[in-house]
Order: sequence, then structure tokens, then C-alpha cells
Amino acid sequence: MTENLIVFNARLVTPQGFSARCGKEMGELLVMDNATVEVTDGIITYVGPNRGEERDGYYQHYWHYNARGRCVLPGFVDSHTHFVFGGERAEEFGWRLKGESYMSIMQRGGGITSTMKATRDAGYIRLRSKAEDFLKQMNHMGVTTVEGKSGYGLDKETELLQLKVMRSLASDEHRRVDVVPTFLGAHAVPPEYQGRTDEYVDYLIRDVMPVVKEQGLAEFCDVFCEEGVFSIEQSRRLLATASDMGFVLKLHADEIVSLGGAELAAELGAVSADHLLHASDQGISRMAEAGVVATLLPLTAFALREPYARGREMIDAGCAVALATDLNPGSCFSGSIPLTFALACIYMHLTVEEAITALTLNGAAALRRADRIGSIEVGKQGDMVVLMNDNFHFLPYYIGMNCVHTTIKGGVIYPT
Amino acid sequence: MTENLIVFNARLVTPQGFSARCGKEMGELLVMDNATVEVTDGIITYVGPNRGEERDGYYQHYWHYNARGRCVLPGFVDSHTHFVFGGERAEEFGWRLKGESYMSIMQRGGGITSTMKATRDAGYIRLRSKAEDFLKQMNHMGVTTVEGKSGYGLDKETELLQLKVMRSLASDEHRRVDVVPTFLGAHAVPPEYQGRTDEYVDYLIRDVMPVVKEQGLAEFCDVFCEEGVFSIEQSRRLLATASDMGFVLKLHADEIVSLGGAELAAELGAVSADHLLHASDQGISRMAEAGVVATLLPLTAFALREPYARGREMIDAGCAVALATDLNPGSCFSGSIPLTFALACIYMHLTVEEAITALTLNGAAALRRADRIGSIEVGKQGDMVVLMNDNFHFLPYYIGMNCVHTTIKGGVIYPT
Repeated sequence: MTENLIVFNARLVTPQGFSARCGKEMGELLVMDNATVEVTDGIITYVGPNRGEERDGYYQHYWHYNARGRCVLPGFVDSHTHFVFGGERAEEFGWRLKGESYMSIMQRGGGITSTMKATRDAGYIRLRSKAEDFLKQMNHMGVTTVEGKSGYGLDKETELLQLKVMRSLASDEHRRVDVVPTFLGAHAVPPEYQGRTDEYVDYLIRDVMPVVKEQGLAEFCDVFCEEGVFSIEQSRRLLATASDMGFVLKLHADEIVSLGGAELAAELGAVSADHLLHASDQGISRMAEAGVVATLLPLTAFALREPYARGREMIDAGCAVALATDLNPGSCFSGSIPLTFALACIYMHLTVEEAITALTLNGAAALRRADRIGSIEVGKQGDMVVLMNDNFHFLPYYIGMNCVHTTIKGGVIYPT
Repeated sequence: MTENLIVFNARLVTPQGFSARCGKEMGELLVMDNATVEVTDGIITYVGPNRGEERDGYYQHYWHYNARGRCVLPGFVDSHTHFVFGGERAEEFGWRLKGESYMSIMQRGGGITSTMKATRDAGYIRLRSKAEDFLKQMNHMGVTTVEGKSGYGLDKETELLQLKVMRSLASDEHRRVDVVPTFLGAHAVPPEYQGRTDEYVDYLIRDVMPVVKEQGLAEFCDVFCEEGVFSIEQSRRLLATASDMGFVLKLHADEIVSLGGAELAAELGAVSADHLLHASDQGISRMAEAGVVATLLPLTAFALREPYARGREMIDAGCAVALATDLNPGSCFSGSIPLTFALACIYMHLTVEEAITALTLNGAAALRRADRIGSIEVGKQGDMVVLMNDNFHFLPYYIGMNCVHTTIKGGVIYPT
């Protein structure tokens, strides 16, 4: 659903460009007072000074939104989530609080495996209804595009089911959030293949990925490249094949140990490498050179009491940094955009301007959509966030609290 | 406004008792499935198993709320906030991110002084309308009682004005949140008294406190006892006089350095000592002996990148610990109850049960109201929180996200 809309009297705050912003460009926002954004059939057709809307009367065939006293930003792009799953893991969260490590919980059959079982048991209706609730909550916090991963089925049938739930949500005429699907069959090794990781990779390559591709169910292919899960070699083999099949590549890289995931992402020309808590200096410079978006997920580090990824250093090294929530039932059960802003600015030492670019244009770039979304410019989708006031510094300053007053999706207004 | 209400089919989750829970008692919650809570004229008149509401038909003259599949907890008590103020300090937040210390910002005229100016300039209407917005947001997160402090006037007229705003909010017939006022004239030394702290204390004792008392504008008297602000000696003098006048005592204690504020709270029989990031071992044991509620404010430590107060050790030492938000425009611009739960459990090592007691019964005790609120028991106010599901572990697990489905105030239902 799209509309004709004119937002006027806005304090416009947006990065600019049709590709990722790297290094110090990330801090360069266009800020324009008394600005107008015109959206025609869902696409932005004018951005600039007010054209006398109030004085000379309104344009015909356009809804009008007076944004006086409010900032208007591009809709937020949450470019890394696992929002389609069955069950929850609140008990396991308690174990972790008592000191058990994420890897140890995984080894004793908790972790991803328990969500795998719940997802296999859930069925389409329950998976979809729960995922839809998450989308609604995300939208209240200003998200207008979200990436979602499979990876809780770990068999052909359930992996396809997760992706079909996303396709159905993506094609909902009344959707407030665009959904971008990623195939993450290599999220963990399922019990059926315990100790036979290479055979599981073979299975994914032979039996699952061709079907995902054929049915057009995912645009990206991702892998949990980590010690004890998928090695660098296994990840390279899977991703190189995926690339040949036409998938765009993503990696869970260097989250728990420094394994060389960032370097692998650069080698393979992945669109993004994600997590990166333990990315090496060399990995960081390789990502910068190769134009890999460094997608940082500070909520996960917060939840696991891990050190934060070196966001400041990555930007200073010329990387394009994106921020995302990592919403999932295990390591990070949170989709909080406000807390993501607070962590990025207080604990990762990004400026608020950089954090905004990271959650808009660079998030879009991490989804190969910087030509369509991520900034307020002519030709892009009319996806916007209206803040509660005219000071965008509230995004990190009002800690953990939602500053979003209204979201606009394709020119359609949704009060939150 | 009060109502007759029967909540049935609930999973009841509540601490029990009419005074603060200390040490390991904090982890002992009553959890009862298929429970009914009956509220008559705003007061709880029955708590126990369902009495056949669905089978035998409903009671006359009572609203009925079917809480099947949901936890019902006591309303949250936020026992330490500064929610009445003018202006904001988003810029200053930026300075702090760049590494300036809270004390150094204060010394260059930022900090409390800038909010003081904005509060003096704001006037009654603006102060009240803004404070009312905060109450609404708090209520959405399950808060049914909030303490608020003066301390941004720092002169007689404006201190009284802040307290009058709170009195007006407290007497609003349609209020969703009860407001408990605290006099904190000794929050900072105003510019007029710079370098003459003792004279400012004299002024408060002589000219302001008697009027506050006479007009019944505050029940508690608090002081920011801290190096460079009010010394132990000055705090003792002010609080001893306040006690003689009939105020109940509170202290901002050992927030930035270990000054002996916890010990002073015990010496003076204060109802609570708050912050306590740097409380000494001796201070902790004195608080436990004297029955001083240790009120911890983890959002502030988070915002200032300070180490968290030693909540786990305090409980293990037999203290009664309360949790509160410290909502204020400077050191902690956040009233997030969800983030408070997450920080308490992930970073201060409280169990979820202890955190619930800290935000309900012990918060009530920190406001000398444990006889009236803070648990779901016969004779207490019908103030309750209904969660989105039947698993109270979601409170810390769903990080930074609001799990509150409905709040109930004096038997009146407010969906959030």
C-alpha cells in the first residue's frame, strides 16, 4: 500500500547517497529546517525547503502532515534479526545469568537446538502470528525494513517454512515493515548431523539451497562461522557455492573468538560481516578495503556481558558500520532500537550522527538496498520516522525510551 | 478514582509482607496459578484460589478481568526520580560521551545548574504538563507509585513550585500513578550561594523547610551528600534538623566517591540511602543493621559508564534492596523499568525474584508505604501489573522491551 503525502515544516535529518557511507562520511548528515518531503505513489518526489504549503493552500491529491517541532529521519533499517521462531528460552537466560557460557549451554542441548525443536513443532500459523507481533513492535520503534533469517529449522522442510512465513509477511498489502529474507541453514549443526558437520554442509548445498533459490525464498545466504560451529573452511565452501547459485553473502563473523571471519567476508566479497566482537585489526582493514559493511549488534554483547565490537576504530579505519538488533530468542531477546542507540553512543563511542547513518543508509547497504531506502532523497521509498521533538540527540540521550512519534511507510502514516 | 474489580484465572506473582524484605527473603515470592484478586473500593479484599467465577457466574457490582495466561504482579514502585523539571540536557549528554566527567560539567555551569535555570523559567503549567507526560510513560511500563523530588529550583519559590506540581498531580482524580513528594533543596548549591554552602544550608533550614512542612508539601527530605556538593557534616546538620521538623530522611549516598553516606544514613535512621555505587563494606553492614533500604539506580551507572552498585553483596549481607530509575534530565534521562530489570539481573546479579521484590515491596518500604502497597495482599491498594504472558522471567529476558499488558490502579483498568 502506498500513498501521496506531503510532510512539511519538518526538521529533516538524513544521510545522503545511494551506497554505504564509510569512515568519516558516516557523521555527515543533512539537517534542514522548514523542510518538505513529497511522496508520490510511495516514492519520494521532492525534498527541499517548504513551498508555501501553509500560506498558499495545500496540494490536491496529497495527504498533508505538519511536522512542525519534529525531526523527520529515514525509516530505520534493522539489517540483522532472527524474528521468525518458535518457543522462547527464558529459563536458559537464567542459566546464563548464573554464569554458564553460551557455548556450554549449546553443547548441553540448549541454545539453538531447543529453538530448533520449538520451531519444527510450531507450524506456519503460530510462526507467522508471533513474527507479526514482532514486526508491529519494531514498527513502533521506527523500523520500516527488517532482515530476517531462517536457521531454526535446520532441515529442509522447516527452513523453507520460516522463509515462507517471511515471504507471506513481505507480501502483505498492509505491511508497515518490509521484510528481507536470508537463508541461514548453517546456523548450527542439527542433532541428526552431530559430529558430521561436513555432511550437513553437503546436505545444505545439495538438497536445500537449490530449492530456496529456485523458489526465490531468500536473497542472502549467511553462515554462523565460529569455533565449534562452522569453520572458516566449511564457511568458505558453503558461501562460495551460494555465491555461484546467485545468493548475496553475509557472515556471522568473529563473535566469540577471533577466527578470521572478517577476512573471509572480504575475500568472498560478502555484503556484510556481522557481530565482529573479536575482529582482528587485519580483518577490519580488509573489510574497509573490500567494502564489506561491518554490522554491529551491541544488544547481543550487552545481553552476554561481552565486550562491545570496536565500532569507533572500525569507522576510523574507513569501514562502513551498520547497527542492527539481532533479535533472537537466545543470545539477544531484544529488538530495542532505543537501547541500540544508547549502547552505540555510550559504549561503542559512535556519535549520534554516525549511529543514525548506521541504522539507516548503512543498514540499507547491508541489504543491498541503499539505492531504494536508507535516506530521504528523490527516487527512494517514502519510509520515514517522525520523532517526538526537534532534537535528534534524544535518540541516545533518552536512554532505552522510544522517541518515535510516527512512522511513515511508502507515504502511509502510522502513529505509534 | 477507585473501582470494584475481580481479577481471576491469574498467575499471581507477589512478595508478601507489610515491611521491607531483607536478604534472602527478597527471593521468596508467592506464585499461585488460577488465582483471584478481589478489589473493593480500590482496596484488596480477597486473594486466593479462583472461586468459580466462570462456572457459577460473576459477582454483581464488580468489573471482571480474565487474566488467563498472564502473570499478575503488584504495581511497580519507582521510589527515586526527579520527574518534575524544565528543559533538557541533550547537548551535555554529548559532552559526557566525549569523556567529560559529570563533576567537571557541573563545575562549568552545566549539570544541575542549567536545569535549575530552565526550571525557574518554566512556570507551573509547563512543568506540570511535562511531568504528566512522564507519568503516562511510567504507567505504560507498570509503575503505579512514583516518588518525585524537588531540587531544580534551589530557591524557595521554585522548590515550592515543583512540590506544588507534584501535589496537583497527586490529587488528580484520574491519576494512574500515585505521586510521593520529597524535598531535595540540598540537591546542589545554587550560583547565588557559590562558595557559601553552609549559608545555603542555613537558608534551607531557616527559610524553606519550615514552609514546606507547614504546607504539607513533602513527606521526605533528601540531600545530595557527595564530595564537592554537601559534605557529611553539612548533610548531617540538614537532615537532623529535618528529622526534628518531622520529615522522613533519604540520602543520595556514595554515588561518586566513598564518602560515608551509607553510614550516615544508618546513623540518622534514614528510610533509604540511594545510589551507593561506592558504598563501603562497613556502610553496607550498617545499613543492614539499621534497616535502611538500599535503593539502587542501575540506569544511572549505565548512563555514566560507572561500575554498578554491589547489589548482590548487599542482599547477601542482609540488606533490603530497592530498585528505582532515577529519571532526571542529566545523569540519567530514562525511566525505563524494562532496562532496570535487565541491568539488575544481568549486571548486578540479582535473581528475577529479587528484582521484582526490589521494584515492588522494597520500593514501597523506601517510601514508608509497605503497609499499603508493594504486594498483592488483603488490605493493600488494588495496584497491579498484568504481564503479556505467564512467564515473569520475561521481565529481564525481553531486554529493554516492555512486558506490561495492562496496569490496574485502585481497581481501575488501564490497558497500555
